[in-house]
Amino acid sequence: MTEAIHAVRAHRERHEAAILGEFADLLALPNVSRDLDDVRVNAEHIVSMLEPRGVKVRTEEIAGAAPVVIGHMDAGAERTVGIYVHYDGQPVEPAEWRFGPFTPTLVDGAGVPRPWPGPGDPVDDDWRLYARSAADDKAPIAALAAALDAVTPAVNVKLLFEGEEEIGSPHLPAYLAGHRDELDADVWFICDGPVHTSGRPQVAFGVRGMTELELTVYGPTRSLHSGHYGNWAPNPALALARLLASMKAADGEVLIAGFEDDTVPVTDNDLAAIAALPDDDERLRRELGLAATESGGAALPLTLMRPSLNVRGLAAGGVGAQAANVVPAAASASIDIRLALGDDPDKMLDRVADHVRAAGYHLVDGEPDQETRMAHARIARIRRTPGYPAVRTPIGTDAGRWVLGSAAEAAGEPVVALPTFGGSVPLHGFVTELGAPVVITPFANHDNNQHAANENLRLGNLWYGVRLMAALLTHTP
Amino acid sequence: MTEAIHAVRAHRERHEAAILGEFADLLALPNVSRDLDDVRVNAEHIVSMLEPRGVKVRTEEIAGAAPVVIGHMDAGAERTVGIYVHYDGQPVEPAEWRFGPFTPTLVDGAGVPRPWPGPGDPVDDDWRLYARSAADDKAPIAALAAALDAVTPAVNVKLLFEGEEEIGSPHLPAYLAGHRDELDADVWFICDGPVHTSGRPQVAFGVRGMTELELTVYGPTRSLHSGHYGNWAPNPALALARLLASMKAADGEVLIAGFEDDTVPVTDNDLAAIAALPDDDERLRRELGLAATESGGAALPLTLMRPSLNVRGLAAGGVGAQAANVVPAAASASIDIRLALGDDPDKMLDRVADHVRAAGYHLVDGEPDQETRMAHARIARIRRTPGYPAVRTPIGTDAGRWVLGSAAEAAGEPVVALPTFGGSVPLHGFVTELGAPVVITPFANHDNNQHAANENLRLGNLWYGVRLMAALLTHTP
Repeated sequence: MTEAIHAVRAHRERHEAAILGEFADLLALPNVSRDLDDVRVNAEHIVSMLEPRGVKVRTEEIAGAAPVVIGHMDAGAERTVGIYVHYDGQPVEPAEWRFGPFTPTLVDGAGVPRPWPGPGDPVDDDWRLYARSAADDKAPIAALAAALDAVTPAVNVKLLFEGEEEIGSPHLPAYLAGHRDELDADVWFICDGPVHTSGRPQVAFGVRGMTELELTVYGPTRSLHSGHYGNWAPNPALALARLLASMKAADGEVLIAGFEDDTVPVTDNDLAAIAALPDDDERLRRELGLAATESGGAALPLTLMRPSLNVRGLAAGGVGAQAANVVPAAASASIDIRLALGDDPDKMLDRVADHVRAAGYHLVDGEPDQETRMAHARIARIRRTPGYPAVRTPIGTDAGRWVLGSAAEAAGEPVVALPTFGGSVPLHGFVTELGAPVVITPFANHDNNQHAANENLRLGNLWYGVRLMAALLTHTP
Repeated sequence: MTEAIHAVRAHRERHEAAILGEFADLLALPNVSRDLDDVRVNAEHIVSMLEPRGVKVRTEEIAGAAPVVIGHMDAGAERTVGIYVHYDGQPVEPAEWRFGPFTPTLVDGAGVPRPWPGPGDPVDDDWRLYARSAADDKAPIAALAAALDAVTPAVNVKLLFEGEEEIGSPHLPAYLAGHRDELDADVWFICDGPVHTSGRPQVAFGVRGMTELELTVYGPTRSLHSGHYGNWAPNPALALARLLASMKAADGEVLIAGFEDDTVPVTDNDLAAIAALPDDDERLRRELGLAATESGGAALPLTLMRPSLNVRGLAAGGVGAQAANVVPAAASASIDIRLALGDDPDKMLDRVADHVRAAGYHLVDGEPDQETRMAHARIARIRRTPGYPAVRTPIGTDAGRWVLGSAAEAAGEPVVALPTFGGSVPLHGFVTELGAPVVITPFANHDNNQHAANENLRLGNLWYGVRLMAALLTHTP
């Protein structure tokens, strides 16, 4: 164990209650990306956490955008590292949460809520802290704050904390472009995401890109009585089902023409790294109650090297208590496409649009008017959210070895080297605007319910995160 | 014009103010089905209307149910007719009504409220009476009362007025079964519904039945991050889409094995009746903004002779502002199946279940447990609501000819003979419990805002209803 890791561990053990209390204060601040006023409160709160710790830090705000928190610490060192975090969170459905999404709650290993510990009270690694963004992605802020209390950075540090990641980071490239010199670094550590599903620590060398669309199929101008019109009026829910079924086969093959035409092929280096990964597929299937996967047996990490087509939502008429006997007027599917290295966001959406057209649909930009309706038997609308491309840093570079070493120090064991995460973070700006390699350094538990109700962070993972931050701040080649 | 029609017309012209006044008194009584005390007041009021007119009439009440009004008049005739009416109404949202739903208001053809006419004051056919149940379905009670003042029935008459139709007639079979002898008749006239959309009078010889199900397809035990698991975790929304797409082709053909096996084939008589109907399809397509129908050009009334499969709702994950980047844990479709003559509600649901099984799904009754999940790659649940069968009386029977003749006498023109309504009404009890054919004899204007705010009855249609009642009571073969 290095001196820094020793120091940070000792510090944490003495201040667990204070670290958790400070983290809970941050988690109590609602941070749904679209609620700009809420998001601003988070940014100011983060500044107030870091300033007393010697970080030169401020918020910057482009008109209409959530602010970023920008900061730096100058150690007079040769090497400069950047630390990226996002402090905004996914929308919440409070009714689905066991506790309020913004009422941070500590729960023991048996799932029983615990009172907040007082100074010196013992806590257990298997306890969890429940709240929106407990894992994704306020945890690195708490970890950085605790690490800064315990160690003095041996490298120069740049900070960029974003407030729009969960809505696709629309202004991140502009923020990066506007602060090129200030954000110049040898490597950017992207502090987000979970450890390996096996529980082992990991470092990831890339992220998938993403692009989104909402597909709406139109039926009659108004919902119709299903008795008087059923069998005669076209049903848009069924038409949508046919269209979606035509996009992806049961064996997982995407049937949209050209879907993988631009995807960079997997290299032997990638395959070797993937082969060295812990094989967690079977355990994961059991955990998720899945007798089979969509990949036909291909291992999860390999499937992440290809673009994916996912239906994240369906809506038409009502179900359950909301069901009414109607032919709905329209049906919609919300789709996200994860991009592999090489895939272009706009071209992917063009391919989906081409597929819908090839299925006989006339595409409209707004609600179809009467003339359009009478001219076309099949009418659909695609609302596009282009998103951003994937980023991948080749495994085996200097930056890669460095961060693998730091993480191994913090973890006390060799870490898993993942060629790419399945998740998407708009990191392309770091490459295109700053020209810097990125490496992702996650520490949340893999079962953190990220993006869903009952998001949580395991305390043992938080403590690893504190050590990881300390290692990244103090490790020198 | 027959003598009876002549007599009833003359009587009505002399007593318009009194007929409308008595009708308004009935309409002023709130009658929402679930308000049992209100509903009872209506039943007693109806008894008090009919008793002085020589009807032997009373209320009967099954515990927990709304009462029925049961009555009879013995003409010493060979032929006995039954008259079914429902006196309960749909719920009301008073704020949406131009006048109070239980403040009957007379409005002229230009939409201007009129004072109530005094004896001898002229009224116009295009005036309308606004109130809940003015059309659906208190109008036949007012029409019957007026007809009984003008003519002496030439047939024996049985009456059954129900107070639970708008909540699905849960006790109608029990009331019918409990009074089999008393309610025995050669034919039951179901006095409900509107005339043809063209404005022409119509008689309908059936209603569709219905049966419902909710189909849920299961994915992982919880919603998964679509980045980390997309391409690997099976997506239940896409699986549901494939399943629904396999149930019905784009040309409207239902692909579920045996779906129409029990459906009574359309006869030449039916085809002739349908061919004689006013062709309203093109106007309707334009009104509803449809370039094409699901029926491949088959006329709407013909499509109603077959069972229909309608997806009335879809739900999975979220769309629009609710969209989150997940592989949903489950996806559901709410489906209603309208039944044609011969179709059995339970067997239809069995066929859907068989179809889902044939697509490789293991069906569960509740949430699937871990063992079930690990044993089956495809798991679905079907929640069944069996419903009730269709009822249809062949056109061209004695009863059919008789009622068509009566309606034509009352209307002074040939009436539209509709083989079946598209909507569902639980009339099967008349057939199964009483063994009697049913014929639906509507007279409300088609634009009566049935079930909605500002329900109304056009006076010309009420006068036709009075004549129709007189004709049904006096017409003999």
